Amino acid sequence: MSRSPNATHDPHLRSWVESANQPDTDFPIQNLPFGVFRSQNSNQPSHIGVAIGDQILDLSLCYKAGLLQGLPEHVQVACAAPNLTQVMAIGSEAASLLRSHISQLLQKNEQPREAQATLISMSDAELLLPTTINDYTDFYASIFHATNVGKLFRPDNPLLPNYKYVPIAYHGRASSIVPSDTAIHRPKGQIKKPQAPAPDFELTQMLDYELEIGFFVGSGNQLGQPIHLDNAEEHIFGLCLVNDWSARDIQAWEYQPLGPFLAKSFATTISPWVVTLEALAPFRCPALERNQNDPSPLPYLSSPLNNELGGIDITVEALLHSSQMHTAGMTPFRLSRGSFKQMYWTVAQMLTHHTSNGCNLRPGDLLASGTVSGAEKDSQGCLLEITQRGAQLVQLPTGEVRSFLSDGDEVILRGYCEKEGYVRIGFGECRGAILSAVFE
Amino acid sequence: MSRSPNATHDPHLRSWVESANQPDTDFPIQNLPFGVFRSQNSNQPSHIGVAIGDQILDLSLCYKAGLLQGLPEHVQVACAAPNLTQVMAIGSEAASLLRSHISQLLQKNEQPREAQATLISMSDAELLLPTTINDYTDFYASIFHATNVGKLFRPDNPLLPNYKYVPIAYHGRASSIVPSDTAIHRPKGQIKKPQAPAPDFELTQMLDYELEIGFFVGSGNQLGQPIHLDNAEEHIFGLCLVNDWSARDIQAWEYQPLGPFLAKSFATTISPWVVTLEALAPFRCPALERNQNDPSPLPYLSSPLNNELGGIDITVEALLHSSQMHTAGMTPFRLSRGSFKQMYWTVAQMLTHHTSNGCNLRPGDLLASGTVSGAEKDSQGCLLEITQRGAQLVQLPTGEVRSFLSDGDEVILRGYCEKEGYVRIGFGECRGAILSAVFE
Repeated sequence: MSRSPNATHDPHLRSWVESANQPDTDFPIQNLPFGVFRSQNSNQPSHIGVAIGDQILDLSLCYKAGLLQGLPEHVQVACAAPNLTQVMAIGSEAASLLRSHISQLLQKNEQPREAQATLISMSDAELLLPTTINDYTDFYASIFHATNVGKLFRPDNPLLPNYKYVPIAYHGRASSIVPSDTAIHRPKGQIKKPQAPAPDFELTQMLDYELEIGFFVGSGNQLGQPIHLDNAEEHIFGLCLVNDWSARDIQAWEYQPLGPFLAKSFATTISPWVVTLEALAPFRCPALERNQNDPSPLPYLSSPLNNELGGIDITVEALLHSSQMHTAGMTPFRLSRGSFKQMYWTVAQMLTHHTSNGCNLRPGDLLASGTVSGAEKDSQGCLLEITQRGAQLVQLPTGEVRSFLSDGDEVILRGYCEKEGYVRIGFGECRGAILSAVFE
Repeated sequence: MSRSPNATHDPHLRSWVESANQPDTDFPIQNLPFGVFRSQNSNQPSHIGVAIGDQILDLSLCYKAGLLQGLPEHVQVACAAPNLTQVMAIGSEAASLLRSHISQLLQKNEQPREAQATLISMSDAELLLPTTINDYTDFYASIFHATNVGKLFRPDNPLLPNYKYVPIAYHGRASSIVPSDTAIHRPKGQIKKPQAPAPDFELTQMLDYELEIGFFVGSGNQLGQPIHLDNAEEHIFGLCLVNDWSARDIQAWEYQPLGPFLAKSFATTISPWVVTLEALAPFRCPALERNQNDPSPLPYLSSPLNNELGGIDITVEALLHSSQMHTAGMTPFRLSRGSFKQMYWTVAQMLTHHTSNGCNLRPGDLLASGTVSGAEKDSQGCLLEITQRGAQLVQLPTGEVRSFLSDGDEVILRGYCEKEGYVRIGFGECRGAILSAVFE
């Protein structure tokens, strides 16, 4: 798969779906992200769709109407499946053909009559998880995040000795991944207060979000067959936003020696639209430059291609909307803005490391980057960092303050790419609001 | 679900399948474990079966022959599925009906003609994974294992302060779970030798097994809805043997701060037969008694029922068969023998803790206990403990010695229950042999 822009990225392309031609849309014809939806309040089976402006092109209906003819038969059939696993499995070359075909269908100079009948308005759709996620892996790929968090626990030695060699990760819980707009229950768990002789089982008081980028596996690999670094991106279908909700007080007590477990597994929210890696081609950039004193990555994690084009310049933002702000009609308050290009490890390095022991990835598996934090104070991607574990309160425009999340708070993640000479593309939003615990 | 024996456990029951009446069989009519198989060297779809002596009762054929009539329709249909997920989802009451029905079918006083046609010899079957495992969680529930391992790293303070409060666990990799008899590739990974300035990427030299008990989730729970301790066993379908292969040198370098990842995710082997919790009723026993100075479990992990009958007395063994021993026609060498009743946390406590933050479990998910080690030296369930991280070599009958596993070694796990007045039941075997790495 090429990392260079092609005809589908042409900034002069316009769609007959007029809302896709507005300058502020996340979903111009140059984007074409994939998702899974069903008509709101219906019990109909889910369909695959492609976001275009404020509309969704229903690929299942396109298939039935013969609008996918010309594509290989198995690609057409995959488009009629109830979720994206089969489409992800077709591999990067076929996915590129499909993208190009859909771009043609939606271009202004095409005859839209039949395709028009396959559109559904986003406001009439319920957006679901893109795949049945079998395995979910979460990395820790921002050195700024790892250093900031390490400082809170080990001021003299914030970064562990393995960090600059190993793309650190842990297995996450797949069952509790939920789509955007799912309400989040504040979890209970074992919490040990510093002076207490023993832990109590109670509601978390340190509920946090983590702003992350996720990436879905396209074609997988066989057990025992690692994926080489320069082939890694052929196994990545596309990217989304991830909020890895975290209960910091539960985490602090439980995480030794096997890592985070219940502090994370109560919920993880993802944005519904999967932006293909191909759509991101214009926004590729060098991998983060290592400091002079940093070790080079080991050979299996190193290549000129990865150095030159391993990065992706995605601007990411986290916003908070308290229920008071909501009631007062205020817009959400921005907590941070950073860029995915500041990650210490690239998506290709993460995927290659994951398979370097022979571990198999399956189509539709989710990998995530870990918290995207940059070097600047205002680019820190979670409250643990922003408030220094609650020591420096965030002031909201209502006068409210936050150390961690309160009941009723909504967290909104956004991502987008902008570059001179190209049309802006967006990721949509990843939203989740905190409920009180229902289990007392 | 009752923890008391019922008619299906009657030691006087005999089957018309004669091999099931032999005293040394793992699969008498009192056991009736479930598995998934297909005819060897065929591309036929997989079927669900029940082990009986050296035969398998094909439940899909039973369904087609009308032999399941009398059971609720959804239970009958679940028996014709290609794997056990649907059967696990029917819940413990329906599973008990099904067990009782199958027991009747196989009893000596029944008319076997039609059922006989649904038998397949185990030697003609390929045994597969019981379910599509969506999520796999591995606990650390033996205090003896945790202490022995802790001593190697922290001689003065082997057990971390959270251990006696928290059933410690981590999320494992589901994709690389393989059925018994799958060959295991020796993985490569980052290994940092104590004196080396930096890690190398190379084959593990500290390949280990871990002897564990796994348990499959039956009916699941909704996200946000914890499962109470005294209801936990209603959500457990049955148990199997688990070998959680581990590369100790990779683990030592990568595990801080997020826990084990590639050191474990290259493969996990499970035994093919799922022994239902109901089959184990005669072998229930008190939970491990806490030392006087140990804290009581927090209320959500504590109940009289759990204290009195939370344990299960399963004898577990690990054996090693080197290729030299194999060539010389020797029997496998026993490395350890212990009992699952010595675990610090019960299966109910593990499951309840897992859901205590609202995390949802799905039918067919796998939980495992962590290494089953007892108080005695000869009951340690991995080589890390047995050889004290390689310091005390194991002597094999051929004169070979082992610190960790060599290429060609086969590890065999066995489990069985014995009790005066009841028929012995077994778990079968969980086998895996080490190949060299194929990727150089």
